[in-house]
Amino acid sequence: MVMLPKDMLETLVNGIFRACQASPEESACVTDHLVLSSMMGMHSHGLMRVAEYAQLIGQGKIVPGAAPTVLADAPGCTVVDYGWNFGQVAAMDLMRRVMDKARNTGVAYGASRRSAHCGRLGHYAEFAAREGFVSLIFCNSGRHGHFVAPWGGRQGRLATNPIAFGMPTRQEPPVVADFSTAACPEGRIRVQRDQGQMLPDGVILTAEGRPSNDPHEFYGPPRGVILPFGGVNGHRGFALSLLVELMGGLLAGQDMTQESPGNGIGVLAINPALVQANDQFLDIIETMRDYIKNTEPAMGFDEVLLPGEPEHRRLQSALAQGVELPEPIWQAMTVCASELGIALPAECPAGQA
Amino acid sequence: MVMLPKDMLETLVNGIFRACQASPEESACVTDHLVLSSMMGMHSHGLMRVAEYAQLIGQGKIVPGAAPTVLADAPGCTVVDYGWNFGQVAAMDLMRRVMDKARNTGVAYGASRRSAHCGRLGHYAEFAAREGFVSLIFCNSGRHGHFVAPWGGRQGRLATNPIAFGMPTRQEPPVVADFSTAACPEGRIRVQRDQGQMLPDGVILTAEGRPSNDPHEFYGPPRGVILPFGGVNGHRGFALSLLVELMGGLLAGQDMTQESPGNGIGVLAINPALVQANDQFLDIIETMRDYIKNTEPAMGFDEVLLPGEPEHRRLQSALAQGVELPEPIWQAMTVCASELGIALPAECPAGQA
Repeated sequence: MVMLPKDMLETLVNGIFRACQASPEESACVTDHLVLSSMMGMHSHGLMRVAEYAQLIGQGKIVPGAAPTVLADAPGCTVVDYGWNFGQVAAMDLMRRVMDKARNTGVAYGASRRSAHCGRLGHYAEFAAREGFVSLIFCNSGRHGHFVAPWGGRQGRLATNPIAFGMPTRQEPPVVADFSTAACPEGRIRVQRDQGQMLPDGVILTAEGRPSNDPHEFYGPPRGVILPFGGVNGHRGFALSLLVELMGGLLAGQDMTQESPGNGIGVLAINPALVQANDQFLDIIETMRDYIKNTEPAMGFDEVLLPGEPEHRRLQSALAQGVELPEPIWQAMTVCASELGIALPAECPAGQA
Repeated sequence: MVMLPKDMLETLVNGIFRACQASPEESACVTDHLVLSSMMGMHSHGLMRVAEYAQLIGQGKIVPGAAPTVLADAPGCTVVDYGWNFGQVAAMDLMRRVMDKARNTGVAYGASRRSAHCGRLGHYAEFAAREGFVSLIFCNSGRHGHFVAPWGGRQGRLATNPIAFGMPTRQEPPVVADFSTAACPEGRIRVQRDQGQMLPDGVILTAEGRPSNDPHEFYGPPRGVILPFGGVNGHRGFALSLLVELMGGLLAGQDMTQESPGNGIGVLAINPALVQANDQFLDIIETMRDYIKNTEPAMGFDEVLLPGEPEHRRLQSALAQGVELPEPIWQAMTVCASELGIALPAECPAGQA
């Protein structure tokens, strides 16, 4: 692990994306997303993606500057084609459009077509919550990401299809939940395999459809599948995954049997000011917070945490102490910068790279 | 078990609710819901409720004929006070209002206040699907139903908070998912206890917050708690339960620490005709159906079923062969009818009762 200053990282990442033809606004949007995700310890959605995105831009698979095209529009809904711009740029634009509609209608829905990898959904739920909106977010992937079997099946038909939601609060932090509908992300199975460790029950099936704890049986060949989350209630995880597919892809007109390299994003925003009968929404939310958090802890727990609290604590710690990154991620970033002819910032701990 | 003709059951249940001052429309709505739920094998949301509802009407806790009062209204959302009318009457009325709004806006949200027990959420999702709408439904309960602990806690703070969704299809049946966000309904723990059976792992904690398989440790005293669903990923079930609380109660202005005898219902309806960019929504849904159902089955399964298929098959079987009811449910219905001075229909198998 290396410990790096947030400002230096932002300068470096911004420099990389600017050198890749991203506009100042696009670059700032993606940089903010990736740095914050790493600060929250979500490395898979964080700075690990810098070198990958730079490479995809080089291949024309991410297209900075692509203008959004509205494909469908009604008072409470919209579908927008983002022309393979960054998923982060698409998701923030979509959330702003949907919030603008919900200001008038109370609730609105939007979905993206042709948007690239969009990273951590909780980022957008938190943004909406700070603007005073309740939000739900759904994110699918193309057929290449279909590692997850439907309940009762042994072939991949769904991606890890995460779902997120957020609610505004008076106190910090807002309530933000963000989780996969699969038992486990593919990346974690890879780590377990590389470290020679076994998986818990209920995570994978072999290619023959037999439960297994051995990560090698997932990779095969022939390749196995990841189960939907829920253990013995895995049919519920499967149903949720279908809901994500519906809201993140099917409703926007995306045929799930066709390949699509990015993420389909579906967003619902609700304006409590128009829904509420009594204008006391934030009071009611804080009463909920106290009621939940004052629960006596179960065996093995110190306290009850609301969704979003663990990430918020890691963020506070990183703000105070700096951003801790696995060395391979930092090395890939410095290699990427050097290939683009970008000098590392003066305060960069080059000796650690 | 007794096997009873559908028409006879409908006549009898209708007679009971009409004798309890329900209007013809209200009585037909509740009867349809309860008979269909029993035909699908969901006895806890079916005819078991007939005698209970009749008793609650007698106590003034269900108020047939109560008129809805709109508490909040915007182009895409509404909150309606149902004055403790039947939950089924409230939920159907709310779904119709929300679909009417979504016809113009593309998406709409509605929530109920003061609506009684609403039964099986899938019923409303299926109704919306047959009208061509995508829907999501969320249902909370008052504090008396807070059997479920937040993740990491050992005190009840949430009800079993079910969630449902539906999507229209060309072929029968529509996709309809409907499930609790708790590991298990309270009623099933009671059945296991009465039959002297142990519970699977991950269902309950004792009052001291220790995992247990013994249903007696749930009932105590002191009483234990039900865990959120998800097994090792129970924090996700907890997050979903909070989402249900938000959409089914908090957004409508309901303080979850206050007692409320009914169900809070939150409904989202989406009109695909306004969302879709390409007008091929039903084609895309059927492609999804084939892609999912053509998955090779895993060990221990014969086929992959979409959400709603098991219930639809049981319904078809009941349509062909009659409605199978546990004897105590049928007996309670006949006692209820006789107390109300209602003669059992001529074709009634009185000897079986």
